Amino acid sequence: MAAAPTLARRIVRPGVLPLCSRPQAWGRAARMSPGLPRAPGLLLAQRRTFSNDKVLVELDEGSGIATMKFKSPPVNSLSLDFLTEFCISLEKLENDRGCRGVIFTSAIPKIFSSGLDITEMCGKSTEHYGEFWRAVQETWLRLYGSSMVTVAAINGSSPAGGCLLALSCDYRIMAENPKFSIGLNEAQLGIVAPFWFKDTFVNVVGHRVAERSLQLGCLHSAPEAHRIGLVDELVPEEKLRDKAAAVVAQWLALPDHARQLTKSMMRKSVLDRLVAHREEDIQNFISFITKESIQKSLRMYMEMLKKKKS
Amino acid sequence: MAAAPTLARRIVRPGVLPLCSRPQAWGRAARMSPGLPRAPGLLLAQRRTFSNDKVLVELDEGSGIATMKFKSPPVNSLSLDFLTEFCISLEKLENDRGCRGVIFTSAIPKIFSSGLDITEMCGKSTEHYGEFWRAVQETWLRLYGSSMVTVAAINGSSPAGGCLLALSCDYRIMAENPKFSIGLNEAQLGIVAPFWFKDTFVNVVGHRVAERSLQLGCLHSAPEAHRIGLVDELVPEEKLRDKAAAVVAQWLALPDHARQLTKSMMRKSVLDRLVAHREEDIQNFISFITKESIQKSLRMYMEMLKKKKS
Amino acid sequence: MAAAPTLARRIVRPGVLPLCSRPQAWGRAARMSPGLPRAPGLLLAQRRTFSNDKVLVELDEGSGIATMKFKSPPVNSLSLDFLTEFCISLEKLENDRGCRGVIFTSAIPKIFSSGLDITEMCGKSTEHYGEFWRAVQETWLRLYGSSMVTVAAINGSSPAGGCLLALSCDYRIMAENPKFSIGLNEAQLGIVAPFWFKDTFVNVVGHRVAERSLQLGCLHSAPEAHRIGLVDELVPEEKLRDKAAAVVAQWLALPDHARQLTKSMMRKSVLDRLVAHREEDIQNFISFITKESIQKSLRMYMEMLKKKKS
Repeated sequence: MAAAPTLARRIVRPGVLPLCSRPQAWGRAARMSPGLPRAPGLLLAQRRTFSNDKVLVELDEGSGIATMKFKSPPVNSLSLDFLTEFCISLEKLENDRGCRGVIFTSAIPKIFSSGLDITEMCGKSTEHYGEFWRAVQETWLRLYGSSMVTVAAINGSSPAGGCLLALSCDYRIMAENPKFSIGLNEAQLGIVAPFWFKDTFVNVVGHRVAERSLQLGCLHSAPEAHRIGLVDELVPEEKLRDKAAAVVAQWLALPDHARQLTKSMMRKSVLDRLVAHREEDIQNFISFITKESIQKSLRMYMEMLKKKKS
Repeated sequence: MAAAPTLARRIVRPGVLPLCSRPQAWGRAARMSPGLPRAPGLLLAQRRTFSNDKVLVELDEGSGIATMKFKSPPVNSLSLDFLTEFCISLEKLENDRGCRGVIFTSAIPKIFSSGLDITEMCGKSTEHYGEFWRAVQETWLRLYGSSMVTVAAINGSSPAGGCLLALSCDYRIMAENPKFSIGLNEAQLGIVAPFWFKDTFVNVVGHRVAERSLQLGCLHSAPEAHRIGLVDELVPEEKLRDKAAAVVAQWLALPDHARQLTKSMMRKSVLDRLVAHREEDIQNFISFITKESIQKSLRMYMEMLKKKKS
Repeated sequence: MAAAPTLARRIVRPGVLPLCSRPQAWGRAARMSPGLPRAPGLLLAQRRTFSNDKVLVELDEGSGIATMKFKSPPVNSLSLDFLTEFCISLEKLENDRGCRGVIFTSAIPKIFSSGLDITEMCGKSTEHYGEFWRAVQETWLRLYGSSMVTVAAINGSSPAGGCLLALSCDYRIMAENPKFSIGLNEAQLGIVAPFWFKDTFVNVVGHRVAERSLQLGCLHSAPEAHRIGLVDELVPEEKLRDKAAAVVAQWLALPDHARQLTKSMMRKSVLDRLVAHREEDIQNFISFITKESIQKSLRMYMEMLKKKKS
């Protein structure tokens, strides 16, 4: 999609290539053109996987549906490493003609993703903040603008940036556990969700619900999230994966080309807004996050989390 | 309305004038100024009708409410002829000071309108495609921007362009028959609803519902259409006409001037967007529809329809 | 907030200063910096009040929550005097660091506010109309753009401009009395709500509900207003004030800075639209209201009100 033209390597930190720390079962050579007869020797290789430190990807070749599992303990926080590997994995799937849909879920119990990693925003250099924020932008541009069918199978809580990941998919299914919560709760931490988080949220729940939820920094329980339209469906946790696969299959029944153009038409203006203001948005983030008052409140929050843990 | 300034004759094909093939009971001479005492000799002429090949119009002079019935068998498909006659009839009503509201309904059982006529988009010349698309635009500009009260009495299924006609009215009442369905299902045919179909849809059901429905090419059953706000009301089919008349009367109780300015304020930005990009939109349509892959899929779809019929 | 940069005195009519007709208990000298220890002599002064002809303001210093009561009999109509005093009072609270939230309610039974004062729009000079309209704009810019938490405790009917006041708050609680109604019913009077009334309404109830409600000039009963999202909550009238205080307290639990930036992000584009077109909007109002047909219909409406009263 034109809205997210940059390559994942643009956000890779110099000297840290390659990011995929495990052997990849799945390269260009293995790719097959759809419609061509499948080579007999590949008949058994129906499930290809690749993995890096932060995510595990399994592609079911029969259905063309991949599953990306977040596996960054303890809470799948969106560190620079996580975001980089997420983007590279997503790009790999995007470029793979055998893959047409992706399910995002967590390999860690009770948490989908805890959102942006606060350690990346606290006590670091200006350059680091800029690099981190660019990776956050890149992640959203790629996911919200993905030409694949994207479904979030939300099997745990998903605050802030975790909620953004879910909001950026085509469809959201959440485990119907009232203890799991989801929302853009940035305001509770004294920070402000950027305008493109807000745009994405408004596109899902409408202006009024977004205005109230953002100002109060609401974390909505699963049933409430369903009631306000933040998630599309609740299912028992054990049925989450099957339901997600069924939904992707339903969306894939449509001709790719028409579905992709339609998706682009719906999302383009919001994607374009960030693309047009990307550097400005990074500068805004840096000047906000480097404020002593903000640094102080983030340090206090981290202290609190540490105490809670021990 | 400024948003739809062109005359219907702009879309009339050269050499095909006049389009109204039946005698018209209703010309300028018969028009009365509202507020003036009605001439005694006209007391019996309380219902004026006119008709052409594709639509039948009846105007009740007492109430100022016209009914336009689609009568183009087998399925009221929106051919160039249909659209042209629709526009001319609508313009005639718009210019008639005795008419303040219109009910749109179908004279054909089980179908409101099947949407754009695929035969107009398949195997024709570039010029023809351009002319056809301009007529589709004109229809929407006139209907969505009409200064009259417009109510769709949806007495049958209404896919694609048929759904657009309904969406462009001020109010939608549907027969509560669960076998009837409605939706912008273009994606199922491998084509993409243009941005102004999308804008009209979003204005009715909101961004999230539109995004999902358009990508899946949903045809919603009447009850579902009501649930998502695509239609405002369901009534038993035999009560559809009476209900529609009551709704128009309710809207006409407001001062015309205030109601019209309010309607224009709500719809102007969306109408203006097409007016500003009209030629570009025609070129987009032509370059899309002339793609061999699209032509092929439309031919296959027509074959399927033919087989179904026989 | 940048969107409402002008001072209230800009709208004050020359020679009519000062507007606060009663002694003010509360000036700059009495203001305390939050966080500083409170002077012992002030311990009893926990409730500060000030008042003018049109509104009564009480500030609870413990909670930082003010209540502004409309007290302009018979129906709290929004006269130039009312709007001027409203703006001055609001500015005073806005500049008071001891005040972080405001509850708006009526001191008059059964009516919250009857909306714009028709006597200001009928039989006056062009200059007067301009001055009046600027005050209406200023009121909205200040209230919709307020950095304080604003809650409407709607203890009576609230048509037209009264509804706008409520819509401009962060949250709306209405007495659950089905006899009380609320809505932007301008169309019923033959006039048109300006675009920024419409924008504010759409931000609360969405495009479709707004389009229908504005065209029909609907006054929604309290239960219906709740159903369409025009008010957030219904409570028995005797619990209205406590509920409003609890809601403000809930919103104030968030860090002010984050909440204010979030609110600004949600409302800025709509505020900016009026700021950019303010003079044009005044001219539009003047040329509309000075039309003989409009003047006539307003005169008739006033006659009707007078007869109803006697």
